[in-house]
Amino acid sequence: MSGVPDQNIHPVATGLAAKTVEKHQGQQPLVFYAGWFCPFVQRTWITLEEKGIPYQYVEVNPYKKEKHFLEINPKGLVPAIEYKGKALYESLVLSELLEEEFPNHTPNVLPKDPVERAYARIWIDYVAKSILPWNMRLIQAQEADKQKDALDELNKALRTFAEKIKGPYFLGEQFSLVDIAIVPWVVRDYIITENRGFSREGVSPKWKQYADLVEKRDSVLNTQSDKEYYAEIYGRYLRDEAQSELAKAIRAGKPIP
Amino acid sequence: MSGVPDQNIHPVATGLAAKTVEKHQGQQPLVFYAGWFCPFVQRTWITLEEKGIPYQYVEVNPYKKEKHFLEINPKGLVPAIEYKGKALYESLVLSELLEEEFPNHTPNVLPKDPVERAYARIWIDYVAKSILPWNMRLIQAQEADKQKDALDELNKALRTFAEKIKGPYFLGEQFSLVDIAIVPWVVRDYIITENRGFSREGVSPKWKQYADLVEKRDSVLNTQSDKEYYAEIYGRYLRDEAQSELAKAIRAGKPIP
Repeated sequence: MSGVPDQNIHPVATGLAAKTVEKHQGQQPLVFYAGWFCPFVQRTWITLEEKGIPYQYVEVNPYKKEKHFLEINPKGLVPAIEYKGKALYESLVLSELLEEEFPNHTPNVLPKDPVERAYARIWIDYVAKSILPWNMRLIQAQEADKQKDALDELNKALRTFAEKIKGPYFLGEQFSLVDIAIVPWVVRDYIITENRGFSREGVSPKWKQYADLVEKRDSVLNTQSDKEYYAEIYGRYLRDEAQSELAKAIRAGKPIP
Repeated sequence: MSGVPDQNIHPVATGLAAKTVEKHQGQQPLVFYAGWFCPFVQRTWITLEEKGIPYQYVEVNPYKKEKHFLEINPKGLVPAIEYKGKALYESLVLSELLEEEFPNHTPNVLPKDPVERAYARIWIDYVAKSILPWNMRLIQAQEADKQKDALDELNKALRTFAEKIKGPYFLGEQFSLVDIAIVPWVVRDYIITENRGFSREGVSPKWKQYADLVEKRDSVLNTQSDKEYYAEIYGRYLRDEAQSELAKAIRAGKPIP
């Protein structure tokens, strides 16, 4: 294999995720281009599983972009969906698309009332803008003071989010896109727990209760691979050696692509 | 006034925007909290004007946060909307809310088909993530090499966007949220033209044609104040002295709040 380390990731899903992949090999009008390890992919995958939408799973290694995939999606990003002759991408855009295109596939992952929906979007936006960048910085930070700064900011942002949880899920009884937006990083938080001094209790009791609950949702478990294979990938991020566009942008303090 | 420079901005809209403000002083179920100079506010304001939704305009100086405003919106950000007992914010969330809550107020600013809508959202997201941060960096950059780097990246991002314009507007005949997402920075581009070597032609002929068109839309003109008052505010950004949360985050290379 080549010298670019991210090209050497494990090629396919394992564990429960592999079983889910196996069930979605047949041709379908909706093709889901995925990378088993990617938290952004998991958002869209969870949405598909929650709503029981028929889909064909296609594994793509975004670091070895194959010709057909680049033809349908020049940006070469996963997750992507090919549907009705269009190639669409961006995890949250795809989740909203699935909700709007399949409103009768329940559960609905966004409230029907526009005002409630706007409230949900505010907090989805908060996850994207105020939580995830700090999570990424914490993983990539090498110096102790930068790690401490990122951990403090991440804890603060998660605490703000936790204060708004109606319970059991963010919006109440309804498991929604707000939960889906953040849960892939909840299930991966052992990375920062083992390597960066993070703890769920350290955020707040309410956060711990929420995190312990959402990680057990069926759609979340069924889109997870075995822990050991993630460790291989995150090792590069923890040593700040990852070569993904996201990793490079975070390292350079540049806008996230 | 205090020593924090951003507190000394001109207090109210001028020019055509002042006339629009004057027409929207009466009480309405929907209260729009705005700052006349803010490009994010202008997005929501354009959406209200396009769709002819009744609203009450309330001017807020976000650097002098008043008690009532902080009570309804603890983050103290504009634009914000108070409606049906809820305080909502984030410019693009508000624009989507207005479209969904008032679908019969035409023109519609998002396509009705979910797939077309997803396509629009991909490009709205592109404006937010790949265009605006470079615009902000270009304005705040002090060293020649950083200015050049930011200008190159901004031109490249705008060119990518321009290539996808169906014409006359981004999605074709329909003036949409994609146009609304970017137009406040189009009408302010004289700042980077006069101070940072930007030119519409320098992006691409297609971009110039689009920019020259969208800035003349009624809803855009009617939400603009006189040029001289923006100059006072942008002067602080151009000298990298601005004290807004956004300015501080860009300066520190930190996540945008």
